[in-house]
Amino acid sequence: MQRVQLSSRQPDSVLVTGSVGYDDIETPHARDERILGGSASYISLAASYFSPVCMVGVVGNDFAQADRDRLAAHGIDTEGLQEDGSGPTFRWSGKYHENYNRRETLDLRLNVFEKFQPHLPGAQRDSRFVILGNIHPELQTYVLDQLTDEEVFVAADTIDLWIETAREPLLRLLQRIHLLVVNDSEATLLTGEDNLIRAGETLRTMGPREVVVKKGEHGAYLFHPEGLFALPAYPVTELRDPTGAGDAFLGAMVGTLSALGDTTLAAQKLGLLYGTVVASLTVEAFSCDRLASGGRDLIEERVEKLRTMTRLESGVALG
Amino acid sequence: MQRVQLSSRQPDSVLVTGSVGYDDIETPHARDERILGGSASYISLAASYFSPVCMVGVVGNDFAQADRDRLAAHGIDTEGLQEDGSGPTFRWSGKYHENYNRRETLDLRLNVFEKFQPHLPGAQRDSRFVILGNIHPELQTYVLDQLTDEEVFVAADTIDLWIETAREPLLRLLQRIHLLVVNDSEATLLTGEDNLIRAGETLRTMGPREVVVKKGEHGAYLFHPEGLFALPAYPVTELRDPTGAGDAFLGAMVGTLSALGDTTLAAQKLGLLYGTVVASLTVEAFSCDRLASGGRDLIEERVEKLRTMTRLESGVALG
Repeated sequence: MQRVQLSSRQPDSVLVTGSVGYDDIETPHARDERILGGSASYISLAASYFSPVCMVGVVGNDFAQADRDRLAAHGIDTEGLQEDGSGPTFRWSGKYHENYNRRETLDLRLNVFEKFQPHLPGAQRDSRFVILGNIHPELQTYVLDQLTDEEVFVAADTIDLWIETAREPLLRLLQRIHLLVVNDSEATLLTGEDNLIRAGETLRTMGPREVVVKKGEHGAYLFHPEGLFALPAYPVTELRDPTGAGDAFLGAMVGTLSALGDTTLAAQKLGLLYGTVVASLTVEAFSCDRLASGGRDLIEERVEKLRTMTRLESGVALG
Repeated sequence: MQRVQLSSRQPDSVLVTGSVGYDDIETPHARDERILGGSASYISLAASYFSPVCMVGVVGNDFAQADRDRLAAHGIDTEGLQEDGSGPTFRWSGKYHENYNRRETLDLRLNVFEKFQPHLPGAQRDSRFVILGNIHPELQTYVLDQLTDEEVFVAADTIDLWIETAREPLLRLLQRIHLLVVNDSEATLLTGEDNLIRAGETLRTMGPREVVVKKGEHGAYLFHPEGLFALPAYPVTELRDPTGAGDAFLGAMVGTLSALGDTTLAAQKLGLLYGTVVASLTVEAFSCDRLASGGRDLIEERVEKLRTMTRLESGVALG
């Protein structure tokens, strides 16, 4: 395979905002408590394999130094990670049912997240690659309002809660972003289209130049001005905890674009490939454990396997 | 694209057995009655785009000359299509619910199919490519028992009914076939594995050298001694009637292998591509209408589109 060597340029930093929290998670096979979670944690760790990362979020008076160290160990700049001493960190308790196909929120405590305003440190306002992880669309918009570089590339995620309760600010946000990454049910909820091909095409008319629709174990679609790209998922046989897989996907995808300094279709396809592989690591353990420990070599190994298992030979054809 | 020209050889005939029937179908959007259906009809029409086809089945005293003509118009040899004057043709009535995700059988009348024995005309006993469409595993086995060519390649399909009510003969049949093509729920029911990767690998230990697991709109997996291949579905936006899509997939896949005279991994991947595309035509109309009228040019156009939408550029990579 021909490789484009990029060592001559320094990749841009990826600015990540979203939630940072502690999760209590129960699956059909195991449970764990008070584990590092939140959209910004997964996105930042995933992106850090490819590009420098600056993280903007808030933690409370109970945030462990070990977790801060864990982010730092991946070179993540936490200058924008505010510490609010007035209360504990955001907490989510969830349970997976029916072979992981249904997730139930058992408890949700916003804690210090309730008053969070994602102020950007001055040095990060001219970021070129920005990921708006899942938080209220008004907060995502507030981040956008602080950006100064006209060439910035903005990717965003959202969830059913905001589609149902904050639809208007979300629709306004869509007009201002470049890449929207949502899962299949969110795409249907946003557009009213059950057919995912039509849903993805409709989402592109709502603002974003590119749209990714994630289908979990069934892979993902990329809707792009030049057409549709479809990629199967990496074949996971040891599913442990799906939490954060979508966030890790987003982080790895945009981290790849930042590393390439390129947002063309070819780069976005490669981003989808890395996003898919990094998501596959994430679901193989609770919390960010396998995402954080997997390592770039394992990622490259899986990227090669996924390339091989989706490659059609060009030399065989019907006459 | 480099093309292997095969015009110098005559493709082998594909021997197809299965049901031939009339269907009454109701979908969320429309209904139609007494339309040509049955596994052998869909398989034969799909395979006929690629290879000569000999069809073995039974019809009753109500089978329309127009339907026989329709098969003949595709060059399908119906010498093995028995006519049983003692009663009407097999009849199935079904209804699709919930945006096509659930199918209910409203009525099933075996009619002349009840006493059907798939006797092969003498000239077809040395067939090299054989498709055992969905019928009772004992009848599929009876076809196998009449085959004389040691190099024969046998592909088979089955459904939940036989997995639940004729498991033992089905398991014995699996030991004697080369390619099993089932959908996701059948793969799980046969193996007890919810994880489709494990289910496909397990099916290969049960006999067939290759296994295809179809996932409808989510594409298909090919499990092969040399590894796993995954292909997304062709993007269908106008779903009308899913009946027969799996049969058409199987017919087009094996028709492709017969046309190539090749069952290597490269050939099977190409078969999966053609199977996927021909299935996409099938679901766009009731009965075999679009499958029969689509034409080879449209098939090739969709094959090119599916190749393009699944192709990763090799010139872009992280340094």
